[in-house]
Amino acid sequence: MRFLKLTVAYDGTDFAGWQWQPQKRTVQGELEAAIKTITGDETRIVASGRTDAGVHAMGQVVSWQTESELGGDVLLRALNANVPRDIAVREVCEAPRGFNAIRASVSKRYRYLLYDDPIRDVFARNYVWQVWQRLDAAAMHEAAQSLRGRHDFKSYQTSGSPRVSTVRSIGDILVKRRATDWAEHIVVEVEADGFLYNMVRNIVGTLVDVGKGKQRTGWPEEVLGQRDRCIAGATAPPQGLYLLKVNF
Amino acid sequence: MRFLKLTVAYDGTDFAGWQWQPQKRTVQGELEAAIKTITGDETRIVASGRTDAGVHAMGQVVSWQTESELGGDVLLRALNANVPRDIAVREVCEAPRGFNAIRASVSKRYRYLLYDDPIRDVFARNYVWQVWQRLDAAAMHEAAQSLRGRHDFKSYQTSGSPRVSTVRSIGDILVKRRATDWAEHIVVEVEADGFLYNMVRNIVGTLVDVGKGKQRTGWPEEVLGQRDRCIAGATAPPQGLYLLKVNF
Repeated sequence: MRFLKLTVAYDGTDFAGWQWQPQKRTVQGELEAAIKTITGDETRIVASGRTDAGVHAMGQVVSWQTESELGGDVLLRALNANVPRDIAVREVCEAPRGFNAIRASVSKRYRYLLYDDPIRDVFARNYVWQVWQRLDAAAMHEAAQSLRGRHDFKSYQTSGSPRVSTVRSIGDILVKRRATDWAEHIVVEVEADGFLYNMVRNIVGTLVDVGKGKQRTGWPEEVLGQRDRCIAGATAPPQGLYLLKVNF
Repeated sequence: MRFLKLTVAYDGTDFAGWQWQPQKRTVQGELEAAIKTITGDETRIVASGRTDAGVHAMGQVVSWQTESELGGDVLLRALNANVPRDIAVREVCEAPRGFNAIRASVSKRYRYLLYDDPIRDVFARNYVWQVWQRLDAAAMHEAAQSLRGRHDFKSYQTSGSPRVSTVRSIGDILVKRRATDWAEHIVVEVEADGFLYNMVRNIVGTLVDVGKGKQRTGWPEEVLGQRDRCIAGATAPPQGLYLLKVNF
């Protein structure tokens, strides 16, 4: 048996998320169908992060066990020829025996893109959260720093997917403006050893309340201390979220 | 009668181009429907550039005559509330009496985006021309400089839309690489006092042959001299093309 590590990008717009579901178009389903076409394998693959409907990935990592003896470059080309246009396999690497993309990952980095202008960006409508007023990105960055480190993030977990522990460690969190010659976006990035359900989207929703001036910069820390989801900001919509990188 | 100048952006992916056509979804049709909803006007608006199906605009300019007395800011908000998500009206300005977006324009600037990587960019599939091999952007830029100035561009005109004269002046043409933290694109920009049918897409198709090493850097100039469309490169596809700016 051979263990492979795939790095995969996808535009989440037209998918019902990563995870296979009957009758639904999912990234896992499309990749497994491509694998079956190429190798005949009826297999289940595992991803480091199970992204929701509408959420994108630049660097999703997938583990795949196969008996196939095709070279990595051949598999890379064959997979890309057999997946739909909204998926791209960026890399196929040999992995250590027993490699599992969930268990082997030590941290993940997500990006969230915001567009804070009263006129919509027609090219980014599926790729950013359009907030119709100007946000104070510096205040959001300052407010976010209190979330750095090891905390109980219960307040930032959407219920319905309970975890044994709600303690996680955020190694890096930042908010910055990024301009191109066409548009200016606010980029939020969060890197942690694990994420609770909707954790990034709930953090972003809370930071946006700070950016709008509805809450003070101390607010995200107060929310953290309350250990109560109900007082945090709204959950940011999925289309601004990207799984950027998985660290092993 | 009042004369207005609208600056409009649109994602051309799901439009059959700018120009109104029966039973087709066009940018002109959607804008005129929004105008009718807001003001009751059954009007015909005029755009500086009639972009084709799939072609995008960042700075299309539209002239609109109306009896409406609504303020510019009110019209801006009302138009944006009534157009679909793939159109954005960026500005509404008062224009001089008799303003016509075609006759008043002195030059236009188009951008064309290329992606020269063997792995597809899933986020840009409707916004760039994916060329599956690496291109020499410096050679393309050098080759493009021979097209600068006043020339007969007959070789770069797709037939079927004859113009009285095929002489045009290119004031600026450039090819450069542009990297973001996600992808690297090749940007081609062409500014001219007027464009023949498919002129930018035919120039780009010819420059790509230079970028691939299939033709020498002197090739675009030779093509120009032949005054024969058949010897130029293929027409580049529409999804990489953007109407960037109209100068008055």
